[in-house]
Order: sequence, then structure tokens, then C-alpha cells
Amino acid sequence: MDKKQANFSAMDVHEMRFKRSFRGYNEDDIDNFIDKVIEDYGTLNREIDRLKNEVDKLKKGYR
Amino acid sequence: MDKKQANFSAMDVHEMRFKRSFRGYNEDDIDNFIDKVIEDYGTLNREIDRLKNEVDKLKKGYR
Repeated sequence: MDKKQANFSAMDVHEMRFKRSFRGYNEDDIDNFIDKVIEDYGTLNREIDRLKNEVDKLKKGYR
Repeated sequence: MDKKQANFSAMDVHEMRFKRSFRGYNEDDIDNFIDKVIEDYGTLNREIDRLKNEVDKLKKGYR
């Protein structure tokens, strides 16, 4: 993995809760945004796993 | 890339704006969260690029 690890996993984001405040950010806006971010954590991490497997196979000499 | 493309890039998230509403999500909480998410988009995408380069090198026969 890159020297720098990710701050969150998809599960971390899924379990996140935020305080409320007067005139805060619109709940639906944020919830929709967070759903897509969780999807992206999944997509990006699956791509990393896929590439790692490909590197392993190539290192073992499989084409 | 995985069949599924990511919904956002780090820049998309950086440029995002949300409506306000009465008793919405606390601004500081969300802003801090979003800063870390932007970092993660960068970290995960750099890792993907790094692995892609490694795959290319291995395919060309460099150890």
C-alpha cells in the first residue's frame, strides 16, 4: 500500500454519525453524497485488490 | 479499471457544495470528514496508479 494509508474504510464511513446544528448541511444532500462515497471506497479498494492479484500472478510468471 | 468507475474524483468532492437546512448536519463535523475523504481519494487513486505501473513493468519483463 502507498506509504500513506487511507483514513477510512467503506465500513468506517457507513458507521459515521454527525452532530446536528442550527442551519447545518442539508441531511438528504449529505446522505446521498455519503452513499456514493461509500460506493467509491468499495470500487477503489476492489480495484487495488484486483491489481495486487495481477502483480502477484505476474511475479509468479503467469501471463 | 474495475467495471464500475468511481462516482467522484478528489476534485469533484473538493468542489462540492451542499444546501443548508434547519437542524442539518454540523458544518465542522462534515467539513472535517470531507477533508479526510478528499485525502483518501488521493491516496487510493495513487495506489491504483502505482500498481498499474508495476503491472506494466512486469508485463514488459522488468523485475
